Amino acid sequence: MSTITVDNINAKVREMQYAVRGAIVQRAGEIEDGLKADPSKYPFDKVVYCNIGNPQSLGQKPISFFRQVLALCDYPDLLLAPGIEKTFPEDVRKIAKDILDNTTGGTGAYSHSQGVAFMRKMVAAGISDRDGHPCDVNDLWLTDGASVGCHYLMKTLITDERDAVLTPIPQYPLYSACLALYGGTLLPYYLREEQGWALDVAELKSQTDKARGEGKNVRALVIINPGNPTGAALGLDNQKEIVQFCKDEGILLVADEVYQENVYAEGKSFTSFKKVVRDLGVDIPIVSLNSTSKGFFGECGRRGGYMEVCGIDKGVAEQLYKLSSVGLCSNLAGQIVMALVMKPPKEGDASYPLYKQEKDDILSSLKRRAVTLVNGLNALEGVSCQEAEGAMYAFPKIDLPAKFLKEAEGSGMAPDALYCMRLLEATGIVVVPGSGFGQVEGTWHFRTTFLPAEADIEGVVQKMTKFHGDFMDAYRN
Amino acid sequence: MSTITVDNINAKVREMQYAVRGAIVQRAGEIEDGLKADPSKYPFDKVVYCNIGNPQSLGQKPISFFRQVLALCDYPDLLLAPGIEKTFPEDVRKIAKDILDNTTGGTGAYSHSQGVAFMRKMVAAGISDRDGHPCDVNDLWLTDGASVGCHYLMKTLITDERDAVLTPIPQYPLYSACLALYGGTLLPYYLREEQGWALDVAELKSQTDKARGEGKNVRALVIINPGNPTGAALGLDNQKEIVQFCKDEGILLVADEVYQENVYAEGKSFTSFKKVVRDLGVDIPIVSLNSTSKGFFGECGRRGGYMEVCGIDKGVAEQLYKLSSVGLCSNLAGQIVMALVMKPPKEGDASYPLYKQEKDDILSSLKRRAVTLVNGLNALEGVSCQEAEGAMYAFPKIDLPAKFLKEAEGSGMAPDALYCMRLLEATGIVVVPGSGFGQVEGTWHFRTTFLPAEADIEGVVQKMTKFHGDFMDAYRN
Repeated sequence: MSTITVDNINAKVREMQYAVRGAIVQRAGEIEDGLKADPSKYPFDKVVYCNIGNPQSLGQKPISFFRQVLALCDYPDLLLAPGIEKTFPEDVRKIAKDILDNTTGGTGAYSHSQGVAFMRKMVAAGISDRDGHPCDVNDLWLTDGASVGCHYLMKTLITDERDAVLTPIPQYPLYSACLALYGGTLLPYYLREEQGWALDVAELKSQTDKARGEGKNVRALVIINPGNPTGAALGLDNQKEIVQFCKDEGILLVADEVYQENVYAEGKSFTSFKKVVRDLGVDIPIVSLNSTSKGFFGECGRRGGYMEVCGIDKGVAEQLYKLSSVGLCSNLAGQIVMALVMKPPKEGDASYPLYKQEKDDILSSLKRRAVTLVNGLNALEGVSCQEAEGAMYAFPKIDLPAKFLKEAEGSGMAPDALYCMRLLEATGIVVVPGSGFGQVEGTWHFRTTFLPAEADIEGVVQKMTKFHGDFMDAYRN
Repeated sequence: MSTITVDNINAKVREMQYAVRGAIVQRAGEIEDGLKADPSKYPFDKVVYCNIGNPQSLGQKPISFFRQVLALCDYPDLLLAPGIEKTFPEDVRKIAKDILDNTTGGTGAYSHSQGVAFMRKMVAAGISDRDGHPCDVNDLWLTDGASVGCHYLMKTLITDERDAVLTPIPQYPLYSACLALYGGTLLPYYLREEQGWALDVAELKSQTDKARGEGKNVRALVIINPGNPTGAALGLDNQKEIVQFCKDEGILLVADEVYQENVYAEGKSFTSFKKVVRDLGVDIPIVSLNSTSKGFFGECGRRGGYMEVCGIDKGVAEQLYKLSSVGLCSNLAGQIVMALVMKPPKEGDASYPLYKQEKDDILSSLKRRAVTLVNGLNALEGVSCQEAEGAMYAFPKIDLPAKFLKEAEGSGMAPDALYCMRLLEATGIVVVPGSGFGQVEGTWHFRTTFLPAEADIEGVVQKMTKFHGDFMDAYRN
């Protein structure tokens, strides 16, 4: 007999953690149900999900252009409907028709395992425009979100705990989850919080040397730029050093660049690692991940993404092809939106004015909201928060009072998790404890998005301020 | 230094095979490119992909109802467009509005990791209508196709090669691929070809006993019903025996039921394993997989699917939730179509007449095409093919001449793979060798879909007939 229980399943699955949708989010769901049943049950009227970069769930409107093209691709009969030109601009109809003409079987058919060639060509053209360097369609895999590409890679690179991957701390827990799931070693490098979460290449080197001394095989370096959960955007000189490090050490560079369109800080801009590699003229293997879920548009529900794999051994690329083939292909609507994201309307196109207006409105609002949130957090007693230069997050440090740390010891929860749970119970605001991302031992953080609508973000700050003041009063020594 | 080559990656990835998109399909892609460059290069004018159940790629039209709802959900402004009621029937507008009202953030937002509650309720209602037994929304995971659910399960159940899964031979290679990838043991049970690919429960028992004697932990039994690649539909008595076997042996029943709407043979119908379990009143853990990709509608590019998990340990269900959370959620358009598939228009709805007509046309045509193909194959020298009672495939047996077997020995390919490659080069028809699915040693098969359009299927049969005749003439002893 072999009844399946949590004790006799794969221990790697059991041990894997993913805090972005962990215990606090599950509790938030219960509270939301409770509020529906009895609105007087909690001292707030709604749950505000700041745990995840999910802009449209908080009221952000989709970009019209993407959705118009999707509607025509999914229901091509609309192209023949009378009065169609009043609802769908000319360039929308043209690109939808081009997509349909170049997609055998339309959005209802499985595509090539790496994605429809036409959509990959659009993505390649966008990458080439961005970088000023060519992109080969055969290097592209269109994936259901960026996570899938990470799974393919980690599954391929990792045989057992001897295989190590340099991972930032704090990090987006997709990486720690994949490493746990596939049995590899997370080789941490700590970002320098006080220097705006800077990346110190000397630490990459010392960690690599140390790991190699212990017999580890350092297979890849993961960089998240702009940073998640830190919100930091790397400078170009830093990027060059990193590329040189990967070249010197023979380490695959995995660039998680899903926030490439989310850089807000003055004087900062995004440069892809592939451009840095090509500009330097070095020949190193590099993987870049992108997603429809992030950017200003935040098309999370689409599950679109791509993985660009350059300079890798041909035999390894064939293995990645095989892995993607077992799942047949990514969803076609996601492929279409990923292509449109990389080749959006340009000046002169009928859709351009509305597209530009929608884009500028969202980006300028995100910038204001980032400043509002970070300033609000920095005004709290014992809280310090680095500037959110990019991405969708702030990752403030909280100096938790000794009395609270003592109390947390008996709770079975990490102190920052307990703090986040209390914040949720008092305000309905859902954030993720720093322990879910990793942090310097003895420091405590949480990650919050700055995505609540402009009309709501002040309220979020006020609620956090009130909660934190009461909290500090209760636990001050 | 740690340059990544195919020799130093995870051996499990390297050893995994997935023939449905293997060497023959890659060769087909090259030929297709070659035809574009020079149409005179091959003795045929197009490549016909019979390697995969991908109906819309071969010209099948999508069901209007599904696509109309999708277009409105993706571009809700259409609901306000003038004249909308001429293009979108009343029930389409109503369900689209209901979906939007019950999906926070619409199709652009991440949903609950298991899928939007509203869509899960629709699926649960459809399952309950189908079986006459209730379905709990908490037991449902909406997934990007059915494959993802299989990955979650196998990853959870398998720690190493001591964990075995009873798998039919021949089987859909998703199962062998997952078992190879996660390092488990494929415990084969052979279907009885001469009895219409019947499943012999005595063999399940003897294989289980044998494996247990060797120290294996038999964790699950995979049943594909209707069968892939066999096309066979299980009888109710056989299903009852299987359920009893799982109960007696304490083995998880994994029912791959993605072809539940594709049963063509007179006197045959589909009964879900969950209904069998509930009707018998036994309490066993059971997982059922379904997909938008199959059925008569064949919405493959959607990547919609569900996994229903009943009677499983709560702690194990929490692990499945965690696994799905790391990928955040399945794509929303796929969730919507999965929900619509399970709750299609009903008599009296504005869309019903067109829906019914489209459905009946496809199903009756599939039935005719199945008969045409199977009869055509059975007319070939040395070929025998069981009736295609359901699914989308025929899996004929070919008695390959000794002279050809001898020639294949030196080719580096399995004899049936070499046969399929020759068929491709001569006719442009792409099929998958039996060795990709497993077969009794010394027998040879291939899998072909009967999905080419009605106007083309006769041509496919004629081309196969001509090729096979020439082939036999060349190799007859």
